[in-house]
Amino acid sequence: MFNIALLGAGRIGQIHAANIAAHQQTTLWSVVDPNQENARRVATQYQARQQSANEAMADPDVHAVLIASATDTHADLIELAASHGKAIFCEKPVHLDLARVRDCLKVVKARRVPLFIGFNRRFDPQFRRVQTEAQQGRIGKPESLLIISRDPSPPPAEYVRVSGGMFRDMTIHDFDMARFIMGEEPVAIYAQGSNLVDPAIGDAGDIDTAFIVLKYASGALATIVNSRRSAYGYDQRLELHGSSGLLCAGNMLENQVQHFSAEGCNSALPQHFFLQRYQEAYAAEWLHFVAILRGEAQPECSGEDGERALYLADKALESLRSQREIAL
Amino acid sequence: MFNIALLGAGRIGQIHAANIAAHQQTTLWSVVDPNQENARRVATQYQARQQSANEAMADPDVHAVLIASATDTHADLIELAASHGKAIFCEKPVHLDLARVRDCLKVVKARRVPLFIGFNRRFDPQFRRVQTEAQQGRIGKPESLLIISRDPSPPPAEYVRVSGGMFRDMTIHDFDMARFIMGEEPVAIYAQGSNLVDPAIGDAGDIDTAFIVLKYASGALATIVNSRRSAYGYDQRLELHGSSGLLCAGNMLENQVQHFSAEGCNSALPQHFFLQRYQEAYAAEWLHFVAILRGEAQPECSGEDGERALYLADKALESLRSQREIAL
Amino acid sequence: MFNIALLGAGRIGQIHAANIAAHQQTTLWSVVDPNQENARRVATQYQARQQSANEAMADPDVHAVLIASATDTHADLIELAASHGKAIFCEKPVHLDLARVRDCLKVVKARRVPLFIGFNRRFDPQFRRVQTEAQQGRIGKPESLLIISRDPSPPPAEYVRVSGGMFRDMTIHDFDMARFIMGEEPVAIYAQGSNLVDPAIGDAGDIDTAFIVLKYASGALATIVNSRRSAYGYDQRLELHGSSGLLCAGNMLENQVQHFSAEGCNSALPQHFFLQRYQEAYAAEWLHFVAILRGEAQPECSGEDGERALYLADKALESLRSQREIAL
Amino acid sequence: MFNIALLGAGRIGQIHAANIAAHQQTTLWSVVDPNQENARRVATQYQARQQSANEAMADPDVHAVLIASATDTHADLIELAASHGKAIFCEKPVHLDLARVRDCLKVVKARRVPLFIGFNRRFDPQFRRVQTEAQQGRIGKPESLLIISRDPSPPPAEYVRVSGGMFRDMTIHDFDMARFIMGEEPVAIYAQGSNLVDPAIGDAGDIDTAFIVLKYASGALATIVNSRRSAYGYDQRLELHGSSGLLCAGNMLENQVQHFSAEGCNSALPQHFFLQRYQEAYAAEWLHFVAILRGEAQPECSGEDGERALYLADKALESLRSQREIAL
Repeated sequence: MFNIALLGAGRIGQIHAANIAAHQQTTLWSVVDPNQENARRVATQYQARQQSANEAMADPDVHAVLIASATDTHADLIELAASHGKAIFCEKPVHLDLARVRDCLKVVKARRVPLFIGFNRRFDPQFRRVQTEAQQGRIGKPESLLIISRDPSPPPAEYVRVSGGMFRDMTIHDFDMARFIMGEEPVAIYAQGSNLVDPAIGDAGDIDTAFIVLKYASGALATIVNSRRSAYGYDQRLELHGSSGLLCAGNMLENQVQHFSAEGCNSALPQHFFLQRYQEAYAAEWLHFVAILRGEAQPECSGEDGERALYLADKALESLRSQREIAL
Repeated sequence: MFNIALLGAGRIGQIHAANIAAHQQTTLWSVVDPNQENARRVATQYQARQQSANEAMADPDVHAVLIASATDTHADLIELAASHGKAIFCEKPVHLDLARVRDCLKVVKARRVPLFIGFNRRFDPQFRRVQTEAQQGRIGKPESLLIISRDPSPPPAEYVRVSGGMFRDMTIHDFDMARFIMGEEPVAIYAQGSNLVDPAIGDAGDIDTAFIVLKYASGALATIVNSRRSAYGYDQRLELHGSSGLLCAGNMLENQVQHFSAEGCNSALPQHFFLQRYQEAYAAEWLHFVAILRGEAQPECSGEDGERALYLADKALESLRSQREIAL
Repeated sequence: MFNIALLGAGRIGQIHAANIAAHQQTTLWSVVDPNQENARRVATQYQARQQSANEAMADPDVHAVLIASATDTHADLIELAASHGKAIFCEKPVHLDLARVRDCLKVVKARRVPLFIGFNRRFDPQFRRVQTEAQQGRIGKPESLLIISRDPSPPPAEYVRVSGGMFRDMTIHDFDMARFIMGEEPVAIYAQGSNLVDPAIGDAGDIDTAFIVLKYASGALATIVNSRRSAYGYDQRLELHGSSGLLCAGNMLENQVQHFSAEGCNSALPQHFFLQRYQEAYAAEWLHFVAILRGEAQPECSGEDGERALYLADKALESLRSQREIAL
Repeated sequence: MFNIALLGAGRIGQIHAANIAAHQQTTLWSVVDPNQENARRVATQYQARQQSANEAMADPDVHAVLIASATDTHADLIELAASHGKAIFCEKPVHLDLARVRDCLKVVKARRVPLFIGFNRRFDPQFRRVQTEAQQGRIGKPESLLIISRDPSPPPAEYVRVSGGMFRDMTIHDFDMARFIMGEEPVAIYAQGSNLVDPAIGDAGDIDTAFIVLKYASGALATIVNSRRSAYGYDQRLELHGSSGLLCAGNMLENQVQHFSAEGCNSALPQHFFLQRYQEAYAAEWLHFVAILRGEAQPECSGEDGERALYLADKALESLRSQREIAL
C-alpha cells in the first residue's frame, strides 16, 4: 500500500483524490492546501489527515506526492519532494519559465526520484489507440497530423494574466500530444493567432485563437487548431493521415441518443470539459503512476517531456511575435 | 452504512460486489456461494466473510441481500430473506414458473420488505434518456417502438435446456424494456421464431431467432427483434417513433477511432457483452437500491414487474406454438 | 430509337417523361391524359404530341407504353397495349383485385409482350447493393430482414378510400422489397395495425400504422414497419442480418452539412419523398426497360412479381382481420 | 438557345459537353481540340460539328465558348474569344503567370465580354450551404476555417513539371474556397510543405504535402491541409468555426450501405475523384453560366477571382521558400 500526500485540493486535485482512494494499492494519506476549507472537505471525504507541505514532505509514511496546486508552486514542491525522496506525480507544467524547469529537473535527477508529469491526454483511450495503431503501421508512414482542441469557454482574464499565455497554458497539451503521436521532434514551428473570443484576453496581452504548424525531419507535418471558446462544447479531436490511411479520433458525446424531428436529426454535445472527457485518462494515469511506484514502469511522461512541450510553447510565441517560422 | 450479503459470486455477482464495495454507504458484509472457490475469491478481494445462506439470513448485521445465484434458487431465497425481514435485490427472474412467482410475491407482500428486481437495462443511461424524453413529450404521442436485441453468441445447449426458453431467458429483458418505454400494458401479443443459429438449441426444443409484436390499448405497437447470435457483437438498440419525431438509442462502441483506408471507413464493434454494455446500468441500479434502503425511493422494478415480464414471455410462447395472436 | 407513349402525365408520369426524353435511345412520342392541361404541359415541354389511349395503341410508330395513370385503369391499359403488341412499363399495381390481375396477366402472356412492373425501390442503388452483397455471401446466410418504411405525411382520406388500403397501396412496395432481398417466398404472414395518424383514415376503414411479420421456409424472418406519417420525413431504411454480419441501408439525407451549436449537432432531414429519394431508381428503371426493348434483358419485375406482392397484401389484410398468422 | 463552342474535349471538357447538351437552352455547337480523335468522338456523341479555334471564334452562330483546353492556352483563347465578343466560360486557371493573367483580364475588360472562371467547388451544394448558412449568421462571426483537400493519387511527374507547382495547380481551388467562405481577403499567408508521396515530384522541384495558414484583417484564421495522395480516396472536407457554432461539410460517400461484421462497421469510400464528387457542381456552374448568357446574372467567379487565387498561390510559394509569413 502506498500512502499519497495530495498537494492541492481544487478541481483537479479532487479528481486525483477519488482515483487515489479507489485504487486498492494507494491510500490518500493527507491533503495539503492553503485553502483550509478545500483541504478539510477532501480530507474528511476520504478519511485522510490535513498536513502542511513541510509536514507531508517530512512524514516518513508518505511514499509519494501528487502536486495539483497552483502552477507557480510546482517547481518548488517538486524540488522539496525530491529532496525528501518522494516519488512525484505533478500536474503540467513544471513551471512557466524554461530555465526554472531545467534547474528543477536537475534536482530531480540528482535525487533519483521518479517524476511523472500529468499530460492526461496521452492516457485517453481514443488518442492512445491512434498512437498505438499508427505505431503498428496501420496507416503506413505518418505524414500529417491535425489536432483540434477548443475549450468550451475562456478562463477569466485574471487567470489569463498569470497563465503564461495560451501556448504555455492550453496549447502545451497539444504540443505534448503531437510529440506523443508523431514520436519524433519537430524541426520547425510557426504560429498564428488572434484575440477574437474575449477582448479582456487581448487586454491581458494574450490570444485566444491560434493555428500552429510543426515540421518534422522526416518531412511530416502537424497542425494544431486552438480556441479558448467553442459554442458546441469541448472540442477534442485528432486525425493522423499516413501513406496508407487515416486514423480519426472524434469527440466523445454526452449520450448516444439521436432525436429526429422536422428540424432534422439532433445529436448530443461533446462531453462537457476535461473532467468529464478525460475521466478515464485520469484513472489510467493513476494506474501508470502506481506501476511506477511498484518499480514496474518508467514515467511515460517525464520531466523532460514537460520541458520539451514548454520549449515548443516558447518557440510558438517567438514565431507569433516575429511572424516567421522558427527553426528548432 | 448498510451491510449486504451477496448470494451468488459468479459473473454478475462479481459486478455487484464491486458496486457494493465502491459505494460509500454499503459494505460487502458476506459472500454466499455453494462454489466455495468463487465465494472465497470474492470475499477475500473485498475483505468480506463467507457465510451460508441461512447464516446470512439469520445474521442481524445483514441489512439486505443481493441474490445473483442460479435462477431456480431465486424464489426460495427471496422468501427466506423476506421472512427474515431483509431488503432484497434480486436478479431477474423471480422464477421461471409464473405460479411460483405469484406465491413468492405474496410472501414478500406479507413481510412488507422491499424487493427490487434487477432489470438492468432500465438503468442504462441511453435507454433511460429515450424513456425520459418520450415522457416529456419530445416526440409527441408514442406510436411504434422497435427493440433490437441480439447476443454476441448463443449459450451452450445445456444452459438452454434449463433456461426456460429464449422468451423467458433473453426476451424477458425486452418485454420489460417495452413496458418501461411505453408505460402501458399490451393488449395483444404475437411471436414468430426459428432455430437458425445452432441446431443444438433446436434439439433442446428452443428457438434462437424471433420477432415479437405487441399491441397496446392506445393503438401503439411495439416489435422486438431477437437473435442468440450476432457476428458483429452485442446489438442493443431501440427506436421510438412518435407523432412528432423519433428517438434512437444506438449501440455503444468499444472506441471512437475510425480507420480510413482503401477498404473504406472502419469503426469499432459494439461493447462486447452485457458486463461492458451495462456497466453504468449496474452501478446506477445499485445507487437506486441504496436509495430504497434509505427509505428515499420505492423499487422502480418491483416483483410485479418481474411477474408481468414473465407473463408476456409465457404468452409469446403460447403465440409461437398456436400460430396466432394472443389477447392479453 | 424507341418511341414511347406516356399514359398519365401526373407526378410520376412527369418523372418518367424526363427520363424518357433524356435517354439517347428513347423519344417521348406522345402523352395521353384525360386531364388535358397536364397532357398539354408535358407534351409541350418535350415536343411530343397528345393522343388518346386508343390513338396511341393504334399508332404503329409507338413501340412501347408507359402506364402511369390512375390505378384502376392499369389492367385495362395493359390488356389494350398487349393486344396491340406494345412493350409495357406499368407503375405498380397491375390492379387492386387479385383475380383481375391474374386475368390481365393471362392476356399479356398470350400476346407475348414484355411487361415490366415499376417497383422502383428495387433499382435504388442502396437497396440493390444490400441485395447484391447478400447474394455474394457477404453476411453469410440471411436470417432476419427489417424494413422501415414511413411516408412523410398521410394521403387525403378520399385517396385512402380508393387506394385498396395501406397494405395494397403502400406496404406492397415493402412486400416486393422483402421478396427482392430474401430471394425466397414467405410461408407465413402476420399483420398488426392501428389508426393513429389521422382519424379520417380510420373512418375510411383503413389503418396508418402497421407491423408485418413474414416467415420463410428456410426459417428466416422479415418484418416491415410502416407508418403513413413521419415527422422527420420520408424514412426508408433496411437492415439484413445474416449468420456472419449485418448490412444496413440508412436514409439518404438532403445534405451532408452538420451544424454544431449549444443545442448539439444537427444533421439534415432525409430526402423529402419518393420523387427525390428514388430519383436515381427511376432513371435506373428506365435503363432497364430500354434493355428490355433492345431484347437484352428480361423484366426484373414481371407481372407475376406484381401479382405476388398483391397476394401478400391480401393475406396481410386477412391476418389483420382474423388476428392470426396466415399460412401461405 | 445559345450555341456553345467547346474548346478542349478531354476529361473535363466531356463533363461540360454533357451539361451543355442536357440544358434546354444551350446547344453544343462545335468541338475544338487539336486531338482530332477526342474532338470527333465528342462531336459525334452530341451531333455537333468540329471546328478549329479560329473557325469557332469567327463563327457568328457561336454565342459563347467554354475553354477546357490545356492550361497554357487559356489566356490566349480568352483574349481571342473576347476580341470576337464571345461570352467566356474558362476552366481555372487563366494562366500560371500572374502578369499574363493581368494582361489578359485587361483585354476582357476592354471588350466588355462576360468571363466566368470555373472554380467548380463554389457550386458544390455542401460547401455552398456552409457559405450560405455562415452568411446568414448561423454560427455567429466566423473565426477559423479548416479546409482538408487531398487527391486520391498524385499526377505523373511530367504533369507536375508543367503544372506551376502544387499551390498553383491544386491548392488554388482551396484558396478560392477560403475566399468564397470567408468573404474577406487575407492579410498574411504562411505555407509549409514536404515531398512525401512520390520522390519524382520532389525531383520535379515540387511538394506534395502542405499546410497553409491565412490570417484576415478581422483576426479570423484559415488553414488548408493538402496532399497529393490519400489512400482512402478523394478527401474534400471543410469546417467553419464561428462565435456561436460550427458548420462541417464532410465527404460524400459512394454509397450509404454499412457492413457490420466481426471486424467492425465498414462504410464506403468517398466518391472517387472530382468528376464524381463535383458532378452536381459542374451542372450548377452551367446553370449559372446560362443565367449570365441571359443577362440575368454577373459571373460569381470573375477573372479577378482567378487572379486573386493565383496571387495567393504565388505568395504561398514565396512563404515556403523564405520560411516566413508573407504580408499581403
